Amino acid sequence: MLRTKDLLDLESCTAAEIKLILDTAEAFLAVMRRRIPKVPILRDKTIVNLFYENSTRTRISFELAEKRLSADVINFSASGSSVSKGETLKDTVDNILAMRADLVVMRHGSSGAARYLADRVPVGVVNAGDGMHEHPTQGLLDMLTMRQKMGTLQGKRVVVVGDILHSRVARSNVWGLTKMGAQVTVCGPPPLIPVEMESMGCKVEYDLPKAVADADAINVLRIQLERQTVQNFPGNREYARRYRVDGALLAKTKPSCFVLHPGPMNRDVEITSEVADGPRQVILEQVTNGVAVRMAIIYLLSGGAPESLGENLN
Amino acid sequence: MLRTKDLLDLESCTAAEIKLILDTAEAFLAVMRRRIPKVPILRDKTIVNLFYENSTRTRISFELAEKRLSADVINFSASGSSVSKGETLKDTVDNILAMRADLVVMRHGSSGAARYLADRVPVGVVNAGDGMHEHPTQGLLDMLTMRQKMGTLQGKRVVVVGDILHSRVARSNVWGLTKMGAQVTVCGPPPLIPVEMESMGCKVEYDLPKAVADADAINVLRIQLERQTVQNFPGNREYARRYRVDGALLAKTKPSCFVLHPGPMNRDVEITSEVADGPRQVILEQVTNGVAVRMAIIYLLSGGAPESLGENLN
Amino acid sequence: MLRTKDLLDLESCTAAEIKLILDTAEAFLAVMRRRIPKVPILRDKTIVNLFYENSTRTRISFELAEKRLSADVINFSASGSSVSKGETLKDTVDNILAMRADLVVMRHGSSGAARYLADRVPVGVVNAGDGMHEHPTQGLLDMLTMRQKMGTLQGKRVVVVGDILHSRVARSNVWGLTKMGAQVTVCGPPPLIPVEMESMGCKVEYDLPKAVADADAINVLRIQLERQTVQNFPGNREYARRYRVDGALLAKTKPSCFVLHPGPMNRDVEITSEVADGPRQVILEQVTNGVAVRMAIIYLLSGGAPESLGENLN
Repeated sequence: MLRTKDLLDLESCTAAEIKLILDTAEAFLAVMRRRIPKVPILRDKTIVNLFYENSTRTRISFELAEKRLSADVINFSASGSSVSKGETLKDTVDNILAMRADLVVMRHGSSGAARYLADRVPVGVVNAGDGMHEHPTQGLLDMLTMRQKMGTLQGKRVVVVGDILHSRVARSNVWGLTKMGAQVTVCGPPPLIPVEMESMGCKVEYDLPKAVADADAINVLRIQLERQTVQNFPGNREYARRYRVDGALLAKTKPSCFVLHPGPMNRDVEITSEVADGPRQVILEQVTNGVAVRMAIIYLLSGGAPESLGENLN
Repeated sequence: MLRTKDLLDLESCTAAEIKLILDTAEAFLAVMRRRIPKVPILRDKTIVNLFYENSTRTRISFELAEKRLSADVINFSASGSSVSKGETLKDTVDNILAMRADLVVMRHGSSGAARYLADRVPVGVVNAGDGMHEHPTQGLLDMLTMRQKMGTLQGKRVVVVGDILHSRVARSNVWGLTKMGAQVTVCGPPPLIPVEMESMGCKVEYDLPKAVADADAINVLRIQLERQTVQNFPGNREYARRYRVDGALLAKTKPSCFVLHPGPMNRDVEITSEVADGPRQVILEQVTNGVAVRMAIIYLLSGGAPESLGENLN
Repeated sequence: MLRTKDLLDLESCTAAEIKLILDTAEAFLAVMRRRIPKVPILRDKTIVNLFYENSTRTRISFELAEKRLSADVINFSASGSSVSKGETLKDTVDNILAMRADLVVMRHGSSGAARYLADRVPVGVVNAGDGMHEHPTQGLLDMLTMRQKMGTLQGKRVVVVGDILHSRVARSNVWGLTKMGAQVTVCGPPPLIPVEMESMGCKVEYDLPKAVADADAINVLRIQLERQTVQNFPGNREYARRYRVDGALLAKTKPSCFVLHPGPMNRDVEITSEVADGPRQVILEQVTNGVAVRMAIIYLLSGGAPESLGENLN
């Protein structure tokens, strides 16, 4: 069982909880491969998807997960720009409380927004990304994909490359992977690696070829140009020259080393098409796993007991 | 039974109809408190939500109500700005007629838009707010909340404070409450109180402390800054000085006097946080009641007989 | 049976396929007239509506069709402006593949986008309009409406009038109608009729009164002002003077000649209200038929066998 009503970050999850979610996701992956990929488990639940930031992929992935569990789904999308954020979140709290939704999935531009909400409502909250803090379901789907490829995460070497500073995906990867016993190296231009990274239990390496030399997996972050300020970003061309993952780089890694990307990709900025479409990427598996991981989390947070999962899926 | 296929305004409702809707809403409130807050009554109906104005709260409240009745829901949102309104509504009429939806919920920026539609389609239309005309479901949820607190509306004194001129919520409150025997006083800056208010059966008072002295309930309207023109609005600061509902004001009212707000609130403009979060507000109850009132209206307009309600909810 | 997993255009459909779709649509029209206009055929399928261009009518029509077949529906709307189109479509491909949707309905601003997607995913793709290429479901609903009015399409004379150059509706009409044995004349200002039209098997006529003299049906295209460039569009007023369909024009046609319009109409630009609301238009029938045609296509592409249709609808 998960210890809390919410999934807000991987920093506060235990290794046992992460393992439970990954194992449960495997069971839902099996459901997704059935002729009828839908189960009536949450037939009487209403889930509200609150997306204060645009996110096609993540929103569709959650909505698919919810509908395959037979939940009723209410979507709300807003660019938070026009409203003062404090007010909006307080409003949200009031409404969630009062309308009696059963679970809330929230993406928000402010770090800590999911916890703010979770602290104020009795229902479960799933963080679908909050500012530069965490994106735990992305971290979990990355870990599920890695575990499938490598059998275990224990002792494996994972390199996360890109703009670590602005990346909630990076933070969720570091917290989750280190808890599961993997050794994480973050790699990117010095101004884009925050000083606290080493204290999170990972190595920092500025030289990409060195970083990947003995890697088992490389997680290539999306360069989000809209988040870059003039001062600390070297420019696409300069970035690509030093940190783009291409065929030449992969040739210097272990033959079993594979490549993840959370999508959507900036081809030829952080990754070349040669790699993105090549035999060593697992990007599509990540997308499939994303639905399964979200089904698992929603199932577990909705009171689904791990021990009755088998029965529930029959 | 309601006499018409539509709910367009409270001006044309009878006291008996309003009572029927409030009583039916109480039954649905009981449903919402069940472990499974959903009934299969409208399993075969399709409801179209046409929102020509943005409205997160109202749209989600309707959608929740519809889904808890098991209806199929089609959402359509548009800012009416880009299209000439006449054309859009005529198009809408054509489409609703032809696609065979069972019920239409419409919010529109033009007063009278809901009636325009209702006059031209054979299916029921629920007005979710039309221009500066009425917002009948908000009026009904306000009245349900007041009735719960006071036992009855008959003979009670209700003050509606704010920008009465631009407020469809104020109009629906005045029509509905006076029909149910309450005594309504509207209060606000003189330029924001239209001359016809007295002919609607309510008192006008420009001095807020005087208005609330013997009030049983105060309904605080949202100041919609976007609707204010330079000429007639005194400015937020000046407005707040004279018409903001704060703790000092409440201290001068009867101890049983309570505060409503349709949300979302401009804290420290028309209401202070002391009041908004204090023991005398019923704002969350309003939100809960909103879902129940909308379930009741949709049930009744979809041919649900009041006398078979009990049976339908079992 | 349809020969392919997709419906991308009418150019590549056979007459037998078009007839099958129209006949199947008639069966679903009968379903839509039932007290419960819904069938549980696709209860276990998930359909994704990807709308890269705004389209209220077409999106609602598809969504209604999908829900009346009891499918789960995921909507995604985006204006393609902010993202480079190639990337977006490649992302879409990846996601559709990986999330295991059962059918994709796509509208896109680029000609050929639907085929691009269809070539890369194993699931069925329905083209809901791609650039200036085709809008096959609109063509089919036009044809269904004509067949209902005339009994057959064989040997009938249909005039399509308007901006042929930019119209995917015109292209789908020409391909579909000529395959079914109708004789199509396209009519409009010379700069708005592309040279390849004659090679598509239809006549070209620049003089509207001449074009409609012996017509059985007139399909009036919407003038999409946003697609007009200064060079080749004569201006609304000049256009209306020569190509607007009005009462005077209709008076010179056969008494049985009727008028279609795909909507939404620019009244007094390409059509007068006299005609648009008059006894010889079938515009509402088109909207109703649109839902039925889309139910038919989705049924057939989801593996619904024509021969078990009767059984499935009971």
